[in-house]
Amino acid sequence: MKTPHGEVNTPVFMPVGTQASVKTLSSEDLHHIGAELILGNTYHLYLRPGHQLIEKAGGLHKFMSWEKPILTDSGGFQVFSLNSLTKTTEEGVRFQSHLDGSYHFFTPEKVIEIQRALGADVVMTLDEPVLYPCSAEQAKRANDLTKLWAERCKTEFERLTSESADKRKQVLFGIIQGSTYPDLRKESAKYLMDLDFSGYAIGGLSLGEPKVTTHEMIEISLSCVPEDKPRYLMGVGTPEDLIESVYRGVDMFDCVLPTRNARNGSLFTRFGKMIIKNSEYASDFTPVDSECGCSTCKNYTRAYLRHLFNTGEISALRLTTIHSLYFYMNLMREMREAILSDGFLEWREEFLSAYQADVNDVEKVRDLPNTEGN
Amino acid sequence: MKTPHGEVNTPVFMPVGTQASVKTLSSEDLHHIGAELILGNTYHLYLRPGHQLIEKAGGLHKFMSWEKPILTDSGGFQVFSLNSLTKTTEEGVRFQSHLDGSYHFFTPEKVIEIQRALGADVVMTLDEPVLYPCSAEQAKRANDLTKLWAERCKTEFERLTSESADKRKQVLFGIIQGSTYPDLRKESAKYLMDLDFSGYAIGGLSLGEPKVTTHEMIEISLSCVPEDKPRYLMGVGTPEDLIESVYRGVDMFDCVLPTRNARNGSLFTRFGKMIIKNSEYASDFTPVDSECGCSTCKNYTRAYLRHLFNTGEISALRLTTIHSLYFYMNLMREMREAILSDGFLEWREEFLSAYQADVNDVEKVRDLPNTEGN
Repeated sequence: MKTPHGEVNTPVFMPVGTQASVKTLSSEDLHHIGAELILGNTYHLYLRPGHQLIEKAGGLHKFMSWEKPILTDSGGFQVFSLNSLTKTTEEGVRFQSHLDGSYHFFTPEKVIEIQRALGADVVMTLDEPVLYPCSAEQAKRANDLTKLWAERCKTEFERLTSESADKRKQVLFGIIQGSTYPDLRKESAKYLMDLDFSGYAIGGLSLGEPKVTTHEMIEISLSCVPEDKPRYLMGVGTPEDLIESVYRGVDMFDCVLPTRNARNGSLFTRFGKMIIKNSEYASDFTPVDSECGCSTCKNYTRAYLRHLFNTGEISALRLTTIHSLYFYMNLMREMREAILSDGFLEWREEFLSAYQADVNDVEKVRDLPNTEGN
Repeated sequence: MKTPHGEVNTPVFMPVGTQASVKTLSSEDLHHIGAELILGNTYHLYLRPGHQLIEKAGGLHKFMSWEKPILTDSGGFQVFSLNSLTKTTEEGVRFQSHLDGSYHFFTPEKVIEIQRALGADVVMTLDEPVLYPCSAEQAKRANDLTKLWAERCKTEFERLTSESADKRKQVLFGIIQGSTYPDLRKESAKYLMDLDFSGYAIGGLSLGEPKVTTHEMIEISLSCVPEDKPRYLMGVGTPEDLIESVYRGVDMFDCVLPTRNARNGSLFTRFGKMIIKNSEYASDFTPVDSECGCSTCKNYTRAYLRHLFNTGEISALRLTTIHSLYFYMNLMREMREAILSDGFLEWREEFLSAYQADVNDVEKVRDLPNTEGN
């Protein structure tokens, strides 16, 4: 995939940089773990520090000192998930800031303007996400609105890019919705194909529906997308989710799972999850994974990481984040190589047989500062 | 100064690694900012993870992945400052853990055993610190005990090092006490000289006494120390303190000021302190100090650091810590070079005329996790 800030190898996992920062990491850290593309959150950056300030800084890349590509979401998901009271009309969505309760109004045109100001390489359309389960009627209504908004986003995006003197080739992705209703998914996908976006995202999955449904919806959504367009599955997921989705043709992912779990002391490894605070690691002077190439595994032992968590040292959060993101980057690299050498199915079998994670069972570390928020 | 883990250029500032970690930093970070010698806290490491565990890990260097020299304090200061009820006898001091209230007993022999297990390059004797102000009687009593304990530490240290098969050339420093009483200071210093330590520390200063008294006590303490022995002023201090003390012959320093202040958003710069959260930096897209060589100043702007603090991103704490420690390392380097080129007085005048810090007025950042503790 080509972007104004360089090429991106797919399949790719995007670390989540909610507030112009991948939590606990610097941009040098992101380079070292091999990140190629990161995600920024329109909703959060609009509220703090404000998209005008970031534009004044020379864009999000300059502001956060990250020279590689950035994708920004449209803010739709946060607007609806961080606010209990939103008022949605055809025109747009009114919401209150989760920070100070102030009122704001997002329209399709507004979120395009914000993302233009941020200078993202990949810009997303505004959608109205739905929860799971969701009635057919609800899903239909949200889908119709999402279609309308996608069209308005496209129009505004083309107006701004044609008017603009700068040669940055930002691209716009549409988001396929339709909850778990095959007909709605198909309708959504076809409608977006007719509008002709540079890439297509699949939204509204991994919200609690059975895995078999997730896979079915991915397949239906992608069946309409031309081979040469990037396909992005939003907010997913576990290593198994990534593998199953790549198998079904997905190219791009983002998820807070590796970073958030790392901050809670739960690390991803080739052999499943590792709860580093467990007493079994108290005097275990081996690395998290002796075959891992990350700087944490090269320099530190399980016993040391456990000690840092136990004593509340915040460097623990960075060192575990480095490991788990490196693990994800490496996972994508392995999948890429397996695909290129026509050995994906063998690779998948081998990986999954070693990997027995139970990522839904993450122990919360109570005595560490709460650094959640994405 | 030569140690088992390499030579150290003096004057030297030691970043404080209380719990086997300089707060927010990795050992790679410490290398990058140019740290040559760091301090570990015997009291904290004894309680968590325990000196036996660190010995099992191969010593503190291996445990925290730091190959350069380490000095450990004796734990005396923390025993007395973190515990409201201690019971001191000639034999030693009984105290309760500040973590779980459990009872422990430190003797001169015990703190030498702990520091031997930690594998520190420089080991300190156990002393009984006093507060300021302190009656002559109190100061005398503490001084007598400190003398006795210094002698017992020396005996135990020599017994252990002569018995030990390993060839690590750990060295032992004595601590000059005597509060603000010139006669007691002199008596303490002379007594320790007769015991012949590898280096001498000055304890019990910068506790609120007037600066003129601090300087006088430093001069009296050092007047008895031979030229070729390292001189270490404990727990001090501001850039001005360091300069005035180097002027009076001090070689070594440790202080939590640069790291703790950085975590509170107060940075040291050539032009004094900078409260990075101040609104004047909201759209200031210049580095903290455009002439500073640290990675924070090379990559990030004041506006970005302010944004990270404002949004509670913990990477803010690391980036500011990197800057302020680098500033301290650079300050020592400049003093070293000025001394070598016989230009210390000119350098001092130039530095101080640019520097107008008010470090006692650090604003507390309320919405950040409390990472204090050293």
